[in-house]
Amino acid sequence: MKERGLLIVLSGPSGVGKGTVRKAIFSQNTDFEYSISMTTRKPREGEVDGVDYFFKTREEFEQLIKEEGLLEWAEFVGNYYGTPVEYVEKTLSEGKDVFLEIEVQGALQVRKAFPEGLFIFLMPPSLSELKNRIVTRGTETQDIINNRMAAAKEEIEMMDAYDYVVENDQVDLACARIRAIVTAEHCRRDRIALRYKKMLEVE
Amino acid sequence: MKERGLLIVLSGPSGVGKGTVRKAIFSQNTDFEYSISMTTRKPREGEVDGVDYFFKTREEFEQLIKEEGLLEWAEFVGNYYGTPVEYVEKTLSEGKDVFLEIEVQGALQVRKAFPEGLFIFLMPPSLSELKNRIVTRGTETQDIINNRMAAAKEEIEMMDAYDYVVENDQVDLACARIRAIVTAEHCRRDRIALRYKKMLEVE
Repeated sequence: MKERGLLIVLSGPSGVGKGTVRKAIFSQNTDFEYSISMTTRKPREGEVDGVDYFFKTREEFEQLIKEEGLLEWAEFVGNYYGTPVEYVEKTLSEGKDVFLEIEVQGALQVRKAFPEGLFIFLMPPSLSELKNRIVTRGTETQDIINNRMAAAKEEIEMMDAYDYVVENDQVDLACARIRAIVTAEHCRRDRIALRYKKMLEVE
Repeated sequence: MKERGLLIVLSGPSGVGKGTVRKAIFSQNTDFEYSISMTTRKPREGEVDGVDYFFKTREEFEQLIKEEGLLEWAEFVGNYYGTPVEYVEKTLSEGKDVFLEIEVQGALQVRKAFPEGLFIFLMPPSLSELKNRIVTRGTETQDIINNRMAAAKEEIEMMDAYDYVVENDQVDLACARIRAIVTAEHCRRDRIALRYKKMLEVE
């Protein structure tokens, strides 16, 4: 029987750079599989359907909610975001690690379904830096910026539900920390002791 | 106030290659400080007093036991091994990580004094490989080899007291896993959440 893969959940306040970090991780060789999220928000410049997100209408998304086809979903600043459950379950059961990049509300739902998952909270170096990032993205109005900052503060308070906190001071450093966390988790004694004890029985 | 450093304990069955892995780690730049062990065993070819171990007589060692100057000590295959406590305490309180490479018996003692330490069990890829390593070291008699193998099996059973299990299939891979574990532990939410929550109060 194959050992189940690890579910790796990268989350954090809006604007912290989750998408940038996730892209940087998958721009190199990795052993884990990316689970593409689904959203009803409009694609940003350069975003591709089926690569960055599955872009759906509200009607399509609500249909999937009804069918319980989502591992988690949330409405955030007026848009739905969610994770189709089928791909995650299938990939984990094949023994591969699955990587989710999702909003904080969604991560808390996933924690309930997968308490053994590996939950990583991406932190801005400071709140002023977070504001800079939201402002310089240049796609948001002042109202949205204020909403996001208020939401971000609330989200940082939710850090307690996570296993790890990774500072996104530099993208390459944040990626290295996340890779290290996954490597370390694969060495955790409670995950692998059984495998090694079998060695004693066989030899 | 400075945050306390991490205590990193590398241990595992006799002959698994703890010393080789430790030397490989410290042959590169690291952020952690090596705590040199003390022993009454004779120096092996190439070992230097005050670098590989502090080599002591039985009388000197027993005096230090009396004075409670050892964080842990054990008698193993006729020799004492131990860790002077002073250096460890001082270095941790300066906020630096301390690295111990010690026998399994000793590690269990350290676990009692430092339950928050990071305990890493170095595993041979197989028991036959472990025997090869003990034999090809070429310094031991057949009796000692048999004793060591019996002790190693018992020690592997003690894996449950550890946080991580690292396979020593290749020295460079084992080193990379140990570095990853230390990086990951520095990102653990329960160690650092307070620091980040202060960010919210200040700004």
